[in-house]
Amino acid sequence: MNQPFVHDQIVRFAHCDPAGIVYFPRFFDMAHSVMEDWFANGVGYSMPFMIREHGVATPTASIRCDFSRPMRMGDTLRFELRVTQLGRSSIGLEYTGLKDGELHLKIVQTIVFVTLDTIKPVPIPEAVRPRIESFICS
Amino acid sequence: MNQPFVHDQIVRFAHCDPAGIVYFPRFFDMAHSVMEDWFANGVGYSMPFMIREHGVATPTASIRCDFSRPMRMGDTLRFELRVTQLGRSSIGLEYTGLKDGELHLKIVQTIVFVTLDTIKPVPIPEAVRPRIESFICS
Amino acid sequence: MNQPFVHDQIVRFAHCDPAGIVYFPRFFDMAHSVMEDWFANGVGYSMPFMIREHGVATPTASIRCDFSRPMRMGDTLRFELRVTQLGRSSIGLEYTGLKDGELHLKIVQTIVFVTLDTIKPVPIPEAVRPRIESFICS
Amino acid sequence: MNQPFVHDQIVRFAHCDPAGIVYFPRFFDMAHSVMEDWFANGVGYSMPFMIREHGVATPTASIRCDFSRPMRMGDTLRFELRVTQLGRSSIGLEYTGLKDGELHLKIVQTIVFVTLDTIKPVPIPEAVRPRIESFICS
Repeated sequence: MNQPFVHDQIVRFAHCDPAGIVYFPRFFDMAHSVMEDWFANGVGYSMPFMIREHGVATPTASIRCDFSRPMRMGDTLRFELRVTQLGRSSIGLEYTGLKDGELHLKIVQTIVFVTLDTIKPVPIPEAVRPRIESFICS
Repeated sequence: MNQPFVHDQIVRFAHCDPAGIVYFPRFFDMAHSVMEDWFANGVGYSMPFMIREHGVATPTASIRCDFSRPMRMGDTLRFELRVTQLGRSSIGLEYTGLKDGELHLKIVQTIVFVTLDTIKPVPIPEAVRPRIESFICS
Repeated sequence: MNQPFVHDQIVRFAHCDPAGIVYFPRFFDMAHSVMEDWFANGVGYSMPFMIREHGVATPTASIRCDFSRPMRMGDTLRFELRVTQLGRSSIGLEYTGLKDGELHLKIVQTIVFVTLDTIKPVPIPEAVRPRIESFICS
Repeated sequence: MNQPFVHDQIVRFAHCDPAGIVYFPRFFDMAHSVMEDWFANGVGYSMPFMIREHGVATPTASIRCDFSRPMRMGDTLRFELRVTQLGRSSIGLEYTGLKDGELHLKIVQTIVFVTLDTIKPVPIPEAVRPRIESFICS
């Protein structure tokens, strides 16, 4: 049975707003860090490598986030990352954001592999597809 | 016939990533600036006033964004903001992001009026509801 | 007698921290926007143009900021930008940050023209030097 | 002999600009995270605690940064934090930013303990002064 990619990070002063809670766009920065570490350590195909060696990036085609409970500075945010869909050029990702085991937010994202020069879709390399598939948790 | 709230801003160096295009979480910062100016100039109930005088903030309950075309540094991003739903404590907002009249992204957001101390929903003040309603464009 | 480049911007929700005042790194984002508009409208050599057409960028070699009074959401921050030094590849810039005519912060920065590929210094184009010099205010 | 507080972090996609190197204001976000971890783990007086329990924050009075070499996405940035000055309400901090043992940047900062309500200086608590002093490295 496949396991999600698990990633913990501390909510920083810079993430929080005058209401004392995380200003929501910062959750997307945090999720992006999770995706970076997943590509580097879960998939074994790091973003610096794909950008510099293959001229490929993974911009976001769509993203949705539901926020159910606020997070505050000093909290530890655990993200569990799962693959929900694997296409020719695109990947569906789901991030559940937990604090002390309770759901605080959920992100659903579609990323697309594109060339850096034209921003047009390119196929996901065959060599990395099995590692990506191993994060499909049904 | 109601009109959307229109807001132009320049895509900044700080918004762009190593791929040379806007790093997507920055679009949410840009949309938040639109919401701030809409509250101040469209609704007449500025966020600094609601926070300091009424102890009320408007965190985001859910947000979705579809990105159809990239934006680059120096581009002018026009947002048209429309109200799609007005509840007791919540507002549905839709932002269409245009460059030279072409759609580049679309954001759908639900914000909730809450007290700053408990982060619990409070009713939207009656006095400002008609102004909010005036941005419902059917 | 030369005049500084003047630029007004509104302090945004996203600039402020749980203490309700601007989180200081955001002042550097605001100053960077001033520099971008100065290059585009004051000097007539926009950063998108220099990056895309000339393969040149202007990273910061050193920066210093003294903060004398806090700024809050909704405040209008006026920056006055002056050139203090013009070298072969480098420019010294001074930003005074004012609210209602009172000094709130002062930034002193050195930027260097470099090629994007090697990040090595290159001479400032002769054609733009007179426009840069016109912002030396003695 | 006192030792600096050592902190490693990965340069993220979100830290980098269209030139492919760290956009300099992001270094201040990274340094702020170091200060947060230093207060929490080095001094034993965490910023969430000081803000919520004591109504105290530590805004920056002045900061200077010299950038000697660029950093790129995926690099590991090591900060060594030292205390250079300890006053009644203020602390002088020095951050050396290293990659593979080589100096890439150096930050010198003065922070001031203030009350959240008036943003006026307050004395640093006696109980935490010895721990702060233990990071003075001569």
